[in-house]
Amino acid sequence: MSSHEPVTVIGLGVMGQALAGALLAVGHPTTVWNRTAAKGDALVEAGAVRAASVADAVAASPLVVLCTLDYPTVRGTLEPAVGQLRGRTVVNLTNGSPAQADEMAAWVTGHGAEYVDGGIMAVPPTIATDEAFLLYSGPERVFAAHRETLEVFGEARYVGAEIGLASLYDLALLDGMGFLFDGFHHSVAMALSHEGAGAEEFTGLLVRWLANMAKLLPALAADIDADRADGTAPQYTQGLDVQLAGQVNILRAARDAGVVDTVGLEHGKAKLEALIASGLTEWSSPVSVRQLRAGPGN
Amino acid sequence: MSSHEPVTVIGLGVMGQALAGALLAVGHPTTVWNRTAAKGDALVEAGAVRAASVADAVAASPLVVLCTLDYPTVRGTLEPAVGQLRGRTVVNLTNGSPAQADEMAAWVTGHGAEYVDGGIMAVPPTIATDEAFLLYSGPERVFAAHRETLEVFGEARYVGAEIGLASLYDLALLDGMGFLFDGFHHSVAMALSHEGAGAEEFTGLLVRWLANMAKLLPALAADIDADRADGTAPQYTQGLDVQLAGQVNILRAARDAGVVDTVGLEHGKAKLEALIASGLTEWSSPVSVRQLRAGPGN
Repeated sequence: MSSHEPVTVIGLGVMGQALAGALLAVGHPTTVWNRTAAKGDALVEAGAVRAASVADAVAASPLVVLCTLDYPTVRGTLEPAVGQLRGRTVVNLTNGSPAQADEMAAWVTGHGAEYVDGGIMAVPPTIATDEAFLLYSGPERVFAAHRETLEVFGEARYVGAEIGLASLYDLALLDGMGFLFDGFHHSVAMALSHEGAGAEEFTGLLVRWLANMAKLLPALAADIDADRADGTAPQYTQGLDVQLAGQVNILRAARDAGVVDTVGLEHGKAKLEALIASGLTEWSSPVSVRQLRAGPGN
Repeated sequence: MSSHEPVTVIGLGVMGQALAGALLAVGHPTTVWNRTAAKGDALVEAGAVRAASVADAVAASPLVVLCTLDYPTVRGTLEPAVGQLRGRTVVNLTNGSPAQADEMAAWVTGHGAEYVDGGIMAVPPTIATDEAFLLYSGPERVFAAHRETLEVFGEARYVGAEIGLASLYDLALLDGMGFLFDGFHHSVAMALSHEGAGAEEFTGLLVRWLANMAKLLPALAADIDADRADGTAPQYTQGLDVQLAGQVNILRAARDAGVVDTVGLEHGKAKLEALIASGLTEWSSPVSVRQLRAGPGN
């Protein structure tokens, strides 16, 4: 496909506007549609064509990109345009689950269009920067045919033919992000128990510390892979007693600091105790992942 | 103090050995002591002097650095050496709580020594590298007198005169790290529900994603500071409905992926629902920190 493939963008929230804006910026003929038409005003000013209906929007371009609130909204939006879907490629960047991606693929391809599912790993201001990457899954030849266009949004990572994979990885990454933000708030809430503490100053330390600790993750991941492949003993272990002593210190200090919500810390303590009670002496990442799949307290 | 100030290191676990080794490497006369003497063998080979007793160890140097399992161990170890404490400076790098640091300071200074409390933000292999930083609190002139020596371990960050501050920040940072690791394991456990997924490959995506998201934290911290200073409305907010929809997607996908332990996700969902029930429509970091200090489900 040429770098100026015509594209339709449906769903003009903050993210949809960023996507359409990125296409316009590099010269793609861009058609836009949104339930509340006014959200497309700035894009029309920048050169986008506003479709009069969803059917017109879908008919306008070989590639139709969707970014709406959720999958039911995608389905509801496309319903009036089913007659125009044949021969198009639908790339759905809406946040949803693998199961929803499967259903959507069946419905879209049932109407004669190709379907690629995607997940956006970026916040709107970083779309079309080096920071952004997007995950895609579905038929590889369909992805390849539109790859050049999709690279406009940010690095296009094809993760596999299985349609739900992009959603699975997307949600797994958002899950990791949720823990990061929860940890940030929890950590700052502890530090702020000191009257003189500034959240910004403390966060400078936290970001540096977490960046250092994140460097350990690939080695822990290698332990998980080795364990899954042939049960090879992990390289990175720590005594469960040391781990538990540290957890107890953090828990006490959090309470002393007035952080009443210690659900995550309590749960972590219970899990370490359960591992010790089961006769284990060493903590490792494979143990931790197995425990998450076995259930709380196990 | 000269860069060759004599130093005693008590407690020769993996971390204590790294600390003493770093001192020896740059030419500090270094005396070592450990309950199990053999743990000092490699250091003695590298030029350290092994003290025959804790009392001899404390007597040998103006600066005594401790790194043991916990504070009770520090106290128990120093008891036989109380007669030698007068005039020394004790720097305690053992992991403990602010309350324990207060008690230890009272006890050590009661025996005529100066006391500085510290927290090591590094894993042993990174001691004496650019990556390592250590937090110190206590009398500033005492810290300043030994700063040059302490910089040998890694960047020496003085966080304040209040003795418990280094411990508070240390445990708060470890708290944030705990969430990071929990999130890593949870995220990988989800991704691995796909047979073809490799933890190492997925973790490459996760590390990149988390590094990008961590760039947002200073701005969120500025919101928290502004809210605390004068209640200024936060700049970074998100609709609680969008936040909750995303949380529900992650929770469902985690369960579908066979991750049975969803305690953190359930709790996050309950907190969002409680905020919505209280009449709020926008999530922000100040709201999140206040909620942690108000209690679970509030």
